[in-house]
Amino acid sequence: MVDTRFAVSVHFMTALAYRQPELLSSEQLAKGVKTNPSFIRKLVVPLAAAGLVESVRGKAGGIRLARKPKDISLAQIYEAVMDTALIAIPGKTPEKECVISCGIGGILCKISKEIEVNTLKVLARRSLQDVLAEIAP
Amino acid sequence: MVDTRFAVSVHFMTALAYRQPELLSSEQLAKGVKTNPSFIRKLVVPLAAAGLVESVRGKAGGIRLARKPKDISLAQIYEAVMDTALIAIPGKTPEKECVISCGIGGILCKISKEIEVNTLKVLARRSLQDVLAEIAP
Repeated sequence: MVDTRFAVSVHFMTALAYRQPELLSSEQLAKGVKTNPSFIRKLVVPLAAAGLVESVRGKAGGIRLARKPKDISLAQIYEAVMDTALIAIPGKTPEKECVISCGIGGILCKISKEIEVNTLKVLARRSLQDVLAEIAP
Repeated sequence: MVDTRFAVSVHFMTALAYRQPELLSSEQLAKGVKTNPSFIRKLVVPLAAAGLVESVRGKAGGIRLARKPKDISLAQIYEAVMDTALIAIPGKTPEKECVISCGIGGILCKISKEIEVNTLKVLARRSLQDVLAEIAP
């Protein structure tokens, strides 16, 4: 039930913002978040694809932000790492004889979309810089 | 990752609204939702505790709404069955040496709460009657 991808991403990206322009390893980031480095690396893939972090290979390599913290909104982080709807809709074929079963999917999807749009609005109001400023002013 | 409690509750409660004042069994409700009766019964417990459905025991028993569909909002259903935050925050003790680790939890909780409040506002705008009217006008 618990999907911590967004929270963990915000956490380690705030650490990257704090330590800019240092390159940090997934091991270092995992230590602060108290997770394992492979989970960090898994999250780095979509975040890098979205142009929010970059991964530098090699011995002196590591992870850093690809933009200034003020140019990264929490909505962008959310959209990069979350592929599941906040309100999960069972993906089953409706029971054909049941009028409710046939009609409910569309309505639930509409409501889920509405919640998603609202959530992104809330998250778009905050940048990584805002988060960092609240922790380390 | 997928928590269908809210969607399934809205689904079978819409069926109850449609078939009012009939008492339906968890088997009948499960058939339309394509889930198992025990999942329906598990959801009935908090929904009954919130005064939204009632369960009548005995041979001729079953489940029905405890109020008129217009007096049941989707926000009430959500609050009854969902006990997890939309944005999951890892419940780990912060890494004491890390300023980000110590400060991030509070901020993530605040953002999660903000999203929750917004979501409930969206859901409060719709009653079970509205959902039913969209499916079976």
